[in-house]
Amino acid sequence: MNAPLPLRTTPPLTEAFLAALTARFADQASTAQAVREHHGRDESPFPLTPPDAVVFARSTQDIADCVKLCAAHAVPVVPYGAGSSLEGNFLAVQGGVCIDVSQMNAILAINAEDLTATVQAGVTRKQLNEALKDTGLFFPIDPGADASLGGMSATRASGTNAVRYGTMRENVLGLTVVTPAGEVIHTARRARKSSAGYDLTRLYVGSEGTLGVIAEVTVKLYPQPEAISAAVCTFPSVDDAVATTIEIIQMGVPIARCEILDANAVAAVNKHDQLTLPEQPMLLFEFHGSPASVREQAETVQAIAAEHGGGHFEWAEKPEDRSRLWKARHNAYFALLQMKPGCRAVTTDTCVPISRLAECFRETVADCERLKAEHGIPYGIVGHVGDGNFHVLMLCDPDKPEERDWVEAVNDRLVQRALDLDGTCTGEHGVGLHKIDFLVKEHGDATLDVMRAIKRALDPQNLMNPGKILRL
Amino acid sequence: MNAPLPLRTTPPLTEAFLAALTARFADQASTAQAVREHHGRDESPFPLTPPDAVVFARSTQDIADCVKLCAAHAVPVVPYGAGSSLEGNFLAVQGGVCIDVSQMNAILAINAEDLTATVQAGVTRKQLNEALKDTGLFFPIDPGADASLGGMSATRASGTNAVRYGTMRENVLGLTVVTPAGEVIHTARRARKSSAGYDLTRLYVGSEGTLGVIAEVTVKLYPQPEAISAAVCTFPSVDDAVATTIEIIQMGVPIARCEILDANAVAAVNKHDQLTLPEQPMLLFEFHGSPASVREQAETVQAIAAEHGGGHFEWAEKPEDRSRLWKARHNAYFALLQMKPGCRAVTTDTCVPISRLAECFRETVADCERLKAEHGIPYGIVGHVGDGNFHVLMLCDPDKPEERDWVEAVNDRLVQRALDLDGTCTGEHGVGLHKIDFLVKEHGDATLDVMRAIKRALDPQNLMNPGKILRL
Repeated sequence: MNAPLPLRTTPPLTEAFLAALTARFADQASTAQAVREHHGRDESPFPLTPPDAVVFARSTQDIADCVKLCAAHAVPVVPYGAGSSLEGNFLAVQGGVCIDVSQMNAILAINAEDLTATVQAGVTRKQLNEALKDTGLFFPIDPGADASLGGMSATRASGTNAVRYGTMRENVLGLTVVTPAGEVIHTARRARKSSAGYDLTRLYVGSEGTLGVIAEVTVKLYPQPEAISAAVCTFPSVDDAVATTIEIIQMGVPIARCEILDANAVAAVNKHDQLTLPEQPMLLFEFHGSPASVREQAETVQAIAAEHGGGHFEWAEKPEDRSRLWKARHNAYFALLQMKPGCRAVTTDTCVPISRLAECFRETVADCERLKAEHGIPYGIVGHVGDGNFHVLMLCDPDKPEERDWVEAVNDRLVQRALDLDGTCTGEHGVGLHKIDFLVKEHGDATLDVMRAIKRALDPQNLMNPGKILRL
Repeated sequence: MNAPLPLRTTPPLTEAFLAALTARFADQASTAQAVREHHGRDESPFPLTPPDAVVFARSTQDIADCVKLCAAHAVPVVPYGAGSSLEGNFLAVQGGVCIDVSQMNAILAINAEDLTATVQAGVTRKQLNEALKDTGLFFPIDPGADASLGGMSATRASGTNAVRYGTMRENVLGLTVVTPAGEVIHTARRARKSSAGYDLTRLYVGSEGTLGVIAEVTVKLYPQPEAISAAVCTFPSVDDAVATTIEIIQMGVPIARCEILDANAVAAVNKHDQLTLPEQPMLLFEFHGSPASVREQAETVQAIAAEHGGGHFEWAEKPEDRSRLWKARHNAYFALLQMKPGCRAVTTDTCVPISRLAECFRETVADCERLKAEHGIPYGIVGHVGDGNFHVLMLCDPDKPEERDWVEAVNDRLVQRALDLDGTCTGEHGVGLHKIDFLVKEHGDATLDVMRAIKRALDPQNLMNPGKILRL
């Protein structure tokens, strides 16, 4: 919804606080305008909303000391990973100190024999996979951006591989968290399962910094598949591509990736990456397994696609061909942004049960086509359709506020549609500033009251990323 | 730990409360001694601890009305599913009303095309699978006992299939919960993934009735595998069986079940089920997939087993042979109990990272052998070794309290060993009464403080299954 940002009700930082901050953090702390502005904008269309100061944490102790100092002076705390969030998740609407964990980039342990790794929160997914290269293992969660593991945990991220490997919800084994009081807690040990008390791991995964700051993350790893094969297939219509996806999932094919690009997204990618993909709705697949299993999956999927008018499969088996293909997919966001330079994107993120995906998709495309015809708003659709999750990118000119209103109206209708279909307003981007009212619609007031009670109990001063997820 | 049960500090039910309970619930409420006693003992060795009254709920509204009435009179509430818990999870240490949900046994929806089902909390896993028979789908979580889905959610249960399909943590999509104030909340819709706010689903999964009463459960379903094959293989030593398991997991074989029985458990099962299995350490396997994939998995596993001295595989491919095999596995608990009739079992439940399993197992077997040699305590070991989780059953005579002390000392040492190996005190049975002190050891005080803050915020009167999981 295109509500104005909440009014800032907190005072500016005091001299006393700044002096204490500098005494503890020296040049790890900054109030320089450029630094603050760099931490004041994400990939959402919200206006620049910088924090009052930035602390570059280098250790869990740094975070704990910073949080304690902020708690003592009633200063808000906003955690910052790689800055790739999409819903205003880290915008400092109440000012305060942004704790940037990007320098906490140590890989603390790779326990290859247990298929786990423990990293500092600032380690990015690409960095982790680079470090795993010679172990025969990999970390599958891939939200597109080279996000930090801390940020991915905080927003319960997922992406292209989730259809097979799950999301951060399923793949975080344990967290080290700095609580709002500045205490360092460990939510779980490394056993693959446990019934030992409340699942604080899962409570902090997706809490977007509102209950504490994630300092370390232990994740599950997977053996690199013996065989990997990727393919693209074009379809006469988006409907056909979606119908193919639904059948693949319902058949139980253990597909590793099943992504959609509509014709607009394919055109944008062609232009951005100098490719010559046919500008039609397209599914991108990836198959993981033994050579026999990959062959079997591919045959099943080709047969299903053919029934829905799918064209020939174009295969990418060599690692460099596969990475070119997925690079193109990952570039879709930036490629679509360049359909109209200078614009910002509103990105939708609904997710519905797979049986309702065709309906959700069809009505949304009709809405977007109307938006384009009536107001000339460019749009494109990409999505993790195997999970029932897709993103519409709609571009709006920041100098024409009415465009944002039109675009948000389409998003509002999409969210309502997804909720009516038993789905969610956000599959993987989180609530941030953008979905606060949708969250109430999705869960109802009684459920929100439980979330509010937890927030108040754990963060009684409301200093942890205030104004996000919930209104108190 | 063999601590005495906490002292009851609550008054008996008042006449006014009982009158109100009868007015609302008529013959759905009972204070008959036989009914109370039936709800006062689980499979743990704790003494009979009956509630003051039992309400047989038939609907979510029944639960809500009962909880509201109890809240108004400050009466504790204890939920009860199938009564199969192992750690004293539902013993009414503070009296109060036991809400028995076993009559809430309606299957509310099977959304076959979305691979989900929604059931009332009293539906058991066998009942659900019976209802799914003609859909081509199944619900994999199998804790052995025919537990209720509500109870399985509340203890974060898992069992034999978890190595492939995960636990209740991964397989509950959403819950309908009655909060301590008697409000009915829904924790999530049916989308397969969501970043919509705090993960209340995962908070309630494993909360053992201490934060509210689970009334309805939506779970993930899976396509019945095209091919299923089961096999048993005996090993010269427990060490060899464990080494085989570790290698299977580290190779990433997508095995569906990988269970151990030590020689004592095999002997007990032979006697109980009139079987003639060789009385040696044994692994039980199950493979799911396409015929080709099952063949491939089986070949890999046979090769690994052979390297560790494993004997010939005995195959069970026909459904009736497979069910005989798994029935024997599931009967192991009762078979072991009958090693010494009249005894009660202390069942351990540690879970460690797979690389530490051999060490954990070896030292535990040595402890148990000493226990047997010195005090004549019979024991047997079964386990979900693919997850690093195993159970030692040790039998103690309720008339000889010193036996319980000896047995608990072995469990104490095992838990400490598991914690030292980065594992957990409970893989799947929950904390109940038995692991309250272990939980503090496992997580530390600061983490427990976060759990306590959540408990106090959501249940300020401490009426929901008081005395379990946490000491306040």
